Amino acid sequence: MTEKARFGRRYLRRRSLDEARDLFLAKAAGGGRAAETVPTVEALGRVTASPSAARHPAPFYHSSAMDGLAVSAADTFGATEEKPVRFHVPGEAAWVDTGDPIPAEKDAVVVSEEIHYREEGQVEIFRPLAPGDNVRVTGQEIATGEMVLPSGWKVGPADVGSLLAAGVTEVEVVARPRVAILPTGSEMIRPGEPLVKGKVVEFNSEIAAALVREAGGAPAIEPPVPDDREKLCSALKEASTGADVVVVLAGSSAGTEDFTPGAIESQGELLVHGVNIAPGKPTALGLVQGCPVIGLPGYPVAMTLSARLFLQPLLRRLLGLAEPIPLTTRAVLPRAVPSRLDSREFIRVRLGRVGGTTYAYSLPRGSAAILSYSRAQGLVSIPEGVEGIPAGREVDVEMLAGLPDLDRTVVLSGSHDLL
Amino acid sequence: MTEKARFGRRYLRRRSLDEARDLFLAKAAGGGRAAETVPTVEALGRVTASPSAARHPAPFYHSSAMDGLAVSAADTFGATEEKPVRFHVPGEAAWVDTGDPIPAEKDAVVVSEEIHYREEGQVEIFRPLAPGDNVRVTGQEIATGEMVLPSGWKVGPADVGSLLAAGVTEVEVVARPRVAILPTGSEMIRPGEPLVKGKVVEFNSEIAAALVREAGGAPAIEPPVPDDREKLCSALKEASTGADVVVVLAGSSAGTEDFTPGAIESQGELLVHGVNIAPGKPTALGLVQGCPVIGLPGYPVAMTLSARLFLQPLLRRLLGLAEPIPLTTRAVLPRAVPSRLDSREFIRVRLGRVGGTTYAYSLPRGSAAILSYSRAQGLVSIPEGVEGIPAGREVDVEMLAGLPDLDRTVVLSGSHDLL
Repeated sequence: MTEKARFGRRYLRRRSLDEARDLFLAKAAGGGRAAETVPTVEALGRVTASPSAARHPAPFYHSSAMDGLAVSAADTFGATEEKPVRFHVPGEAAWVDTGDPIPAEKDAVVVSEEIHYREEGQVEIFRPLAPGDNVRVTGQEIATGEMVLPSGWKVGPADVGSLLAAGVTEVEVVARPRVAILPTGSEMIRPGEPLVKGKVVEFNSEIAAALVREAGGAPAIEPPVPDDREKLCSALKEASTGADVVVVLAGSSAGTEDFTPGAIESQGELLVHGVNIAPGKPTALGLVQGCPVIGLPGYPVAMTLSARLFLQPLLRRLLGLAEPIPLTTRAVLPRAVPSRLDSREFIRVRLGRVGGTTYAYSLPRGSAAILSYSRAQGLVSIPEGVEGIPAGREVDVEMLAGLPDLDRTVVLSGSHDLL
Repeated sequence: MTEKARFGRRYLRRRSLDEARDLFLAKAAGGGRAAETVPTVEALGRVTASPSAARHPAPFYHSSAMDGLAVSAADTFGATEEKPVRFHVPGEAAWVDTGDPIPAEKDAVVVSEEIHYREEGQVEIFRPLAPGDNVRVTGQEIATGEMVLPSGWKVGPADVGSLLAAGVTEVEVVARPRVAILPTGSEMIRPGEPLVKGKVVEFNSEIAAALVREAGGAPAIEPPVPDDREKLCSALKEASTGADVVVVLAGSSAGTEDFTPGAIESQGELLVHGVNIAPGKPTALGLVQGCPVIGLPGYPVAMTLSARLFLQPLLRRLLGLAEPIPLTTRAVLPRAVPSRLDSREFIRVRLGRVGGTTYAYSLPRGSAAILSYSRAQGLVSIPEGVEGIPAGREVDVEMLAGLPDLDRTVVLSGSHDLL
């Protein structure tokens, strides 16, 4: 590497977050979705790829909705407290439990509580029934051929029941997007290996894999690609043939060994290089052989944020899911927070309540400090063009974690404006 | 079964939802938590059972935070635009990439952008640096022995990174509560089996298993127990020795073949039988050999609701997790909704927007109609002692699903008052 090369590559025109995301998602999430068939009992959390139609009605025979006495409703007409109607059992009426078939000639069920027991074989009732009372009629809940779940539906626990109730024992779901994760760098060791000065513990691939799983994708961490332009190009090309999304870790900045943007450009199309967000500026977005490629920054906090902003929304689009509504709470900044004019800054905060007011305490801002991300409960986003927020100002905090140790009186709100 | 037996068993004193839940959770969630050790890379979504301490510092050597030139800060003192300081490279300064060790005698890094290249081996800089500028000092982010994650923390993607950054490759997590699910009844067929009149398709166990998985537990569906008091007693006793929670499906009503409450009572302690909720009244709660037992109603909607109200909160308690903040939206009821005075009623609704107003349309209320639960987006809860809600009234709707097809302008809010 010559000294000159150090002053070489610069960012493409840097883009705002919205601009970068719109440009990328429009091109990257346009293709068809692969589907696979899974047993209904394993479909929890998956997204349907086609509508499911009922195979049989539910219930599939006229059945009793209660424990009681199956009768012909016509025989009960005129019954009152003063003039009860008497039935001989069995014969004029038949005992049924919930779910039992309604015997032929009977069309209503008197519930146990409304029956007066007189003597063996004789009971009385005190009010008339209409045909169908306490009877679940064939197909009452689900008719054969009726749509049980539409396409694009995330399967919840009750949906598993609805499908099985209708005899649908297999369901077509969207295949989990396969995400190839390519760590880059020649100086890496795996977590737990002996520490060698000058080598970096490579854990970004595991954060990325967890973010992929969280969004419903299937991650595969590939062997690290050395800092070599040709090797990165061929790794990128190979990964893009077998995966639905390729993630390249690090090497997307504007430094000497930042080969990712160039490799994307040479193998396909580089759409974005450099986004006006902090942390996260060195993000590269493009396509190789039609496969979306995301070059994430090397610093773990920047990587995590950029993956939340680009990778996870892409995976949700590929699955056919809408963006979740971001949940926010209002909190007061106890100290002024400076911000860079040229970027949308994401400040990690912890929340605390003092005398009925929720405060947002900002955490260390270094983009290497993954522990500060881990400890963050929320993000305060300061738009481009704003120099900072003065102390005492109330701001929106987007919640990250499940509020594990917050005062229970916290109030959340959310509305759908992220995408 | 004699006719007399039909008029036998009645509910224990029926309890309100809060009363039943408090009574049950206080006794059922009191025990210790089993822990297990898992690789950190598989810990996503698990709950830590003990605090994790850093095994090594991060970074573990003084390293460059940027691509640039490692210098001794003292050599830069006095540099200005007019009077730049010149360095011979190598010798007085050394090129470093991000992550490289800082060479001995050097203590700061000038970033590439601030270096003026003069000729081979000579560069200039225009402002002074302080010692430590652009250097990540050993242990700056994490010191050896520092707590990385506390106990009772749900592990997210960034947490996986924090643990690995600190050399913590295994983590102790709370074991998933093992939930034995016992379907009861002599007249059951499995989904997909040929339909036989009088037999019921048994899918409640699969809904229950999905609800258990959703809350972080490990379900095991046991073979169905026939309608026989002795067989249920011995199945209950056996299940309670090998599981952390036992769920008995159906048989907890007040009918002829509802053996569950009696079986719990004979083998242990019956705390609650009958809760003032609709659907869901026939819920039985108790302990057998110290193991929590939940008898859920037989109708699928009642079962699902009761499991949401008793089983899922129990599992979260056993995992050491706080109850999630329930998310609600405000919606107008287009029609009057009647309600029973003696119960807290849960009305399933779908939401729709008409001319800027969100309306909550109530779905069929039958507790057998699982499809109506599946289609519900939210629940409107009408307290005991209230006869109903008039048309046009605005109410809180607790959201169930991910709002898949709702207008994006929906506004959510939530506050922590459920438990």
